[in-house]
Amino acid sequence: MNKKKIINDPVYGFVSIPSAFIFDLVQHPYLQRLRYIKQVSMTHLVYPGALHTRFQHVVGAMHLMSLAIDTLKSKDVEISPEEEEAALAAILLHDIGHGPFSHSLEHTLIEGVSHEMISALLMDKLNEEFEGRLTLAITIFNDQYPRKFFHQLVSSQLDTDRMDYLNRDSFFTGVSEGVISFDRIIKMLHVYNDELVVEAKGIYSVEKFLIARRLMYWQVYLHKTVIGAELMLIKILARAKEISAQGASLFATQALRHFLTNKVDIHNFLEDPVHLTNFMRLDDTDILSAVKEWAFGEDKILRVLCTKLMQRNLLRTELRNASFSEEEVKQVRAKVKAHFRLTEEEVDYFVYTQVVRNSAYDLKQNNIKILNKQGVVQDITEASDLSNLEALAKSVEKYAISYPKEVGLVFGHL
Amino acid sequence: MNKKKIINDPVYGFVSIPSAFIFDLVQHPYLQRLRYIKQVSMTHLVYPGALHTRFQHVVGAMHLMSLAIDTLKSKDVEISPEEEEAALAAILLHDIGHGPFSHSLEHTLIEGVSHEMISALLMDKLNEEFEGRLTLAITIFNDQYPRKFFHQLVSSQLDTDRMDYLNRDSFFTGVSEGVISFDRIIKMLHVYNDELVVEAKGIYSVEKFLIARRLMYWQVYLHKTVIGAELMLIKILARAKEISAQGASLFATQALRHFLTNKVDIHNFLEDPVHLTNFMRLDDTDILSAVKEWAFGEDKILRVLCTKLMQRNLLRTELRNASFSEEEVKQVRAKVKAHFRLTEEEVDYFVYTQVVRNSAYDLKQNNIKILNKQGVVQDITEASDLSNLEALAKSVEKYAISYPKEVGLVFGHL
Amino acid sequence: MNKKKIINDPVYGFVSIPSAFIFDLVQHPYLQRLRYIKQVSMTHLVYPGALHTRFQHVVGAMHLMSLAIDTLKSKDVEISPEEEEAALAAILLHDIGHGPFSHSLEHTLIEGVSHEMISALLMDKLNEEFEGRLTLAITIFNDQYPRKFFHQLVSSQLDTDRMDYLNRDSFFTGVSEGVISFDRIIKMLHVYNDELVVEAKGIYSVEKFLIARRLMYWQVYLHKTVIGAELMLIKILARAKEISAQGASLFATQALRHFLTNKVDIHNFLEDPVHLTNFMRLDDTDILSAVKEWAFGEDKILRVLCTKLMQRNLLRTELRNASFSEEEVKQVRAKVKAHFRLTEEEVDYFVYTQVVRNSAYDLKQNNIKILNKQGVVQDITEASDLSNLEALAKSVEKYAISYPKEVGLVFGHL
Amino acid sequence: MNKKKIINDPVYGFVSIPSAFIFDLVQHPYLQRLRYIKQVSMTHLVYPGALHTRFQHVVGAMHLMSLAIDTLKSKDVEISPEEEEAALAAILLHDIGHGPFSHSLEHTLIEGVSHEMISALLMDKLNEEFEGRLTLAITIFNDQYPRKFFHQLVSSQLDTDRMDYLNRDSFFTGVSEGVISFDRIIKMLHVYNDELVVEAKGIYSVEKFLIARRLMYWQVYLHKTVIGAELMLIKILARAKEISAQGASLFATQALRHFLTNKVDIHNFLEDPVHLTNFMRLDDTDILSAVKEWAFGEDKILRVLCTKLMQRNLLRTELRNASFSEEEVKQVRAKVKAHFRLTEEEVDYFVYTQVVRNSAYDLKQNNIKILNKQGVVQDITEASDLSNLEALAKSVEKYAISYPKEVGLVFGHL
Repeated sequence: MNKKKIINDPVYGFVSIPSAFIFDLVQHPYLQRLRYIKQVSMTHLVYPGALHTRFQHVVGAMHLMSLAIDTLKSKDVEISPEEEEAALAAILLHDIGHGPFSHSLEHTLIEGVSHEMISALLMDKLNEEFEGRLTLAITIFNDQYPRKFFHQLVSSQLDTDRMDYLNRDSFFTGVSEGVISFDRIIKMLHVYNDELVVEAKGIYSVEKFLIARRLMYWQVYLHKTVIGAELMLIKILARAKEISAQGASLFATQALRHFLTNKVDIHNFLEDPVHLTNFMRLDDTDILSAVKEWAFGEDKILRVLCTKLMQRNLLRTELRNASFSEEEVKQVRAKVKAHFRLTEEEVDYFVYTQVVRNSAYDLKQNNIKILNKQGVVQDITEASDLSNLEALAKSVEKYAISYPKEVGLVFGHL
Repeated sequence: MNKKKIINDPVYGFVSIPSAFIFDLVQHPYLQRLRYIKQVSMTHLVYPGALHTRFQHVVGAMHLMSLAIDTLKSKDVEISPEEEEAALAAILLHDIGHGPFSHSLEHTLIEGVSHEMISALLMDKLNEEFEGRLTLAITIFNDQYPRKFFHQLVSSQLDTDRMDYLNRDSFFTGVSEGVISFDRIIKMLHVYNDELVVEAKGIYSVEKFLIARRLMYWQVYLHKTVIGAELMLIKILARAKEISAQGASLFATQALRHFLTNKVDIHNFLEDPVHLTNFMRLDDTDILSAVKEWAFGEDKILRVLCTKLMQRNLLRTELRNASFSEEEVKQVRAKVKAHFRLTEEEVDYFVYTQVVRNSAYDLKQNNIKILNKQGVVQDITEASDLSNLEALAKSVEKYAISYPKEVGLVFGHL
Repeated sequence: MNKKKIINDPVYGFVSIPSAFIFDLVQHPYLQRLRYIKQVSMTHLVYPGALHTRFQHVVGAMHLMSLAIDTLKSKDVEISPEEEEAALAAILLHDIGHGPFSHSLEHTLIEGVSHEMISALLMDKLNEEFEGRLTLAITIFNDQYPRKFFHQLVSSQLDTDRMDYLNRDSFFTGVSEGVISFDRIIKMLHVYNDELVVEAKGIYSVEKFLIARRLMYWQVYLHKTVIGAELMLIKILARAKEISAQGASLFATQALRHFLTNKVDIHNFLEDPVHLTNFMRLDDTDILSAVKEWAFGEDKILRVLCTKLMQRNLLRTELRNASFSEEEVKQVRAKVKAHFRLTEEEVDYFVYTQVVRNSAYDLKQNNIKILNKQGVVQDITEASDLSNLEALAKSVEKYAISYPKEVGLVFGHL
Repeated sequence: MNKKKIINDPVYGFVSIPSAFIFDLVQHPYLQRLRYIKQVSMTHLVYPGALHTRFQHVVGAMHLMSLAIDTLKSKDVEISPEEEEAALAAILLHDIGHGPFSHSLEHTLIEGVSHEMISALLMDKLNEEFEGRLTLAITIFNDQYPRKFFHQLVSSQLDTDRMDYLNRDSFFTGVSEGVISFDRIIKMLHVYNDELVVEAKGIYSVEKFLIARRLMYWQVYLHKTVIGAELMLIKILARAKEISAQGASLFATQALRHFLTNKVDIHNFLEDPVHLTNFMRLDDTDILSAVKEWAFGEDKILRVLCTKLMQRNLLRTELRNASFSEEEVKQVRAKVKAHFRLTEEEVDYFVYTQVVRNSAYDLKQNNIKILNKQGVVQDITEASDLSNLEALAKSVEKYAISYPKEVGLVFGHL
């Protein structure tokens, strides 16, 4: 490569690809596939700009990693060229195991296989392909490298993954509450005993980062209409698998058909490479084209759900602090059953409950460490003057019920 | 509607839907379909953020229309509630006739039918559905309303369509050269003899708008890699139609199959409503899912082209000021033919030339008018001190040739 | 006024002056004087961009008031043209009583007279000049108007004053932690029983507003170097008054000399209009030109302090959670006394302690009210799911000591 | 210095001070003085946010220099640590010779001495103070260093000075037409034969930079109200010198009095160091405090002009493409003379004409060079497809006349 390759990113401006090897990784079909997997699944139905992809995210996270490494080096933390390349590769590859619609369909197409497991499998395959050059990146990714801060930059409560996705999701949704001062936080990073720490005067920026994360959870990731739509999509796929098992022949790409007609779980997934091969051919397009087509198909349930999804006639979702009692759910089901003339089994596809929970800061693991002016390292909750951070550590649970709008507003928690 | 509906737009912040009727239009399946048609087709392969849709664009343009109307009313231009609603509806509907991949595939699936014609057909259908409430909007859209400025706000050299797309495309590509001061331009709008004019002190903002438009053309819309990729897509569809005509049964959604297997032109399109019905079921998903699947199909040409497109192994496109001679093209074709072992006919799918041209300002029609301080209206080229604007009116032509990277760099105009 | 007057504001873009009367107020010398009073006093010594003025702030706050009124009217809250004008005038005039260096020198030049009292006096004078047209504005300002929400928009825990200053101070300091989504908050405002409320879905934006305010306090308003510099300025003025009282003739503008040589307190201030006349001639320039000149004067204390201030050789300020004991202070004084060869009295000008405190939300008065989806109004701390807001209500106190850097770092809380 | 010093800049975010020596320069009283000299003089009377200072500008320009050097190093241009430090120092010091109100009062207080000459004098003094460490910086500044690109980064048609001031003035005025993509331009910089060049794909960004500069000239730097106000200030100082010469004792700081009562020109300025010493004590405060005080003084002309300036009752300035004839000027003078009952000599203080001119690109010297893809260097006007750049090279002249508003609008070119 005779020139610096540059990617235009509306979030950060120009992102430089730092080396030919990193460029080769970016060009690899495994990475290019992520161009067709949206970062935040169905969120665009509520925030129309949120069409950004896993590809943009991993490139952005790599950019932040590169800034973080520059900062640490300028503070005389020794980082070898090999370590630098490995850290960049690790963050670039951290999401390659994601399937279509990211988290929404995880565990739907394949039972019991997380995207992290698939990422690990794919990294090993790539490492073979690149003749071992990814070994250190994988060691860092798996937190087996003694200099912990590299892993912490890839995955912790203040990692480049979170910094990028908060910033990026905030940018594309237009929810300015999620904007974080990533540049400030990065400039305040330091290393102490090979652990990642934040200099004391960065404490307010970190606080704001945690608060921004909480606000993004409630305004975006756990937005009731979004979680309702995502559950619709899961139910659609479940229905498709159900009737495929009964012998129906649904429109689908070959790769999607593979997962509709075969029961894939952790055991056979690891045994037979055909599953992984098909998985790597899947992206959002396979799902969306099927949903579009099923809206005109023979199965009434699929037809109704898919039409609703495509025309954005989404289920109504109500969210509240108390759980819905069996009695309450029964009452909604009865209304829906009558209105749409459904059997008891069919109602399952139109009425769903779910619990959502979030805590902005986890007190128990991977705490964020502050390096104070006396050179002492403290947990951020101790270093901060306010009890806010403890409040942020509290887990908040909410309860949701979704059902077709046609039956009217049942509980009134709009 | 008891509450103001609001749409989050990362470009403008909050966009208010001004009335229940406009909200009904936004909710209509014709508008919702635009959620799945990207504004700038394959541009995301060069600018990864450019995944925004026609839906976002029409909502944004409606927002600008609403700001423009507020400005004019504050300057005592009389605008009735009916006129306001009609102007908003006209801009909201101006793009409903777009098919998948917007301009790229126009005239590919249907010969000789422009998206404007389809928009006109669909507006009439909607007008029936809404019992004539769109009549004034259609009159404005067709430039048959005596108060010309309404049409000029919808379609002219300084309309809300252009203002939105420049701003939006600039935002999502990250090409800051395209950012325009839409708020300044809008605040400077006025009406004189029922024609749209710009107050003299807005002249610099308008100049910058024209220049921004030119920069966006050369940096984004006519970017050589983008125009090469778009021609690849056209060739893929052409090949699919060709072998479908020969009896091949390709993977496709029903709607796409309709256009692969039927020759639709302006005559039968207007005669038989089945064509429009199928057209309205198409969006980017239909095309993209087919391209993905054809990458694993039997036809070698489709297989190669589709694999290249999906893995972003795009054709190399060279762009220069002089046209490519027959001899030069022949030379490229020979190299490609030999390298890929193709027949003379097959080479057509791998080597393309095209001419691209752009002028930032058209002197001949719909000139931008400046209202100077003496109350006199002038064409902007006369009102400006500099000869810049005349330069902007010059049409610039460039010539492109695209071919597979495998044969190396042929001319050297990278 | 035949044209809409527009002010360019880098924070909001274009700000329209809504009427000829409001324009006359803006042009009045009382308002123009605010062009020469910085909004955040000595903060620019830490954040060099923070040179913005009270003038910019009041125009910005008026802009937000205008947006808030538009929102309320669009939700069918009845607001008469007279009420609208009065609300705009009230916010425009709310700061006219500020003297040089805003809060820093309050009570220094005049004992016991707050800027609010002076604002009230000046509004009455203006009301006379404008023949009673400000009567309603003054009624609103004084919270004597039955429709409470007007006063709440001018002055409450969620008023247009705070929204503007947080946003503006954040913009000009570059401390992005203070950026608030003023447009979201304003779009969520409503009126219930003539009180200002926020619609439930705006709750996260309000939370972020309160948190942003807290972060701005600790990062900007109570930044240790800033509070140290402000106290230096107060001490300089105190010293100047002291030696003027002893007969020294210091360089000063006539207006400043008036306050150096006369003891002005609340009693004679209200009795003799000469004090107010002189006060209205003062702005930051009078103080700064004196400080510059005193750096070359005869009094050693003034000379040292003023030179330090002008050359930004500021006192070191240490900030901690526990107060400084008499013993500790004595120790610092001893060091400074020895180093600069000062008398016990003179040390007072070089060593200062102060307590700073802030709570982001006051539970006791003017609570922020949320209008939930059932139409019930609650205090924001009850409406929110999290205990964060209660944490925000906690008052935090810190203790500061300032002394010349020449004696080295004494306590080590940098 | 054990920590990286950081300055918060609202334009660029965090600016790092790269070394202890550079930090010492920033702290030097010569640099600190620039905190009190506004970058764009009286412009804040039209754009209220434009209060930013020369200090902010030089720190910002140093930041851009640092980015440019990083880019060049990443492209394997060899730059030694000494060269890097020298380039940073040169840009940091390039404006230290500016006096109060920057360009406005140049040649008013001292005849025939430019700020560049004073900068050169001061750099030599600093070089002595820093024991020769600035020698290379001075060599670069004076364009005597063989590697021309260092000087070109400090001073040329595409230097870090211009990039910073356009961006900064645009930011603080709110005139978005001036925003430039400095990051893109910098990433496209390269060095060829020790000359600064721009890579071909940066050509559009450079074009936009030149256009932005032209727009900033006409919208900000040569805004008629601004140039009128600046001439008022010059006339005020001229009057003050005139009556001081006649024996009047005006309020003034000692340093300002020095220049009011002594005729300083290039000869005695260089001979007697007292002039430079006094000059270095001057900043905007000295002038502004005098103007404020003179508004209450005995001389009628000063009183009227200073009151007008302080209350922003500015002269009306008309701007047009043709010059004002003697006859026209005479007519205005007659009106003003009658209205204010002035003598023929006194009218000079109230009626002024001036010529303003600007060309965005100078064809004759220091051309911007483009490095095309074949490795050939061309002037930008040849490399660009359009004739726009030639148009930008045209010098545009306009003619202004200023006079008190009290006599009404005379010519009508508002």
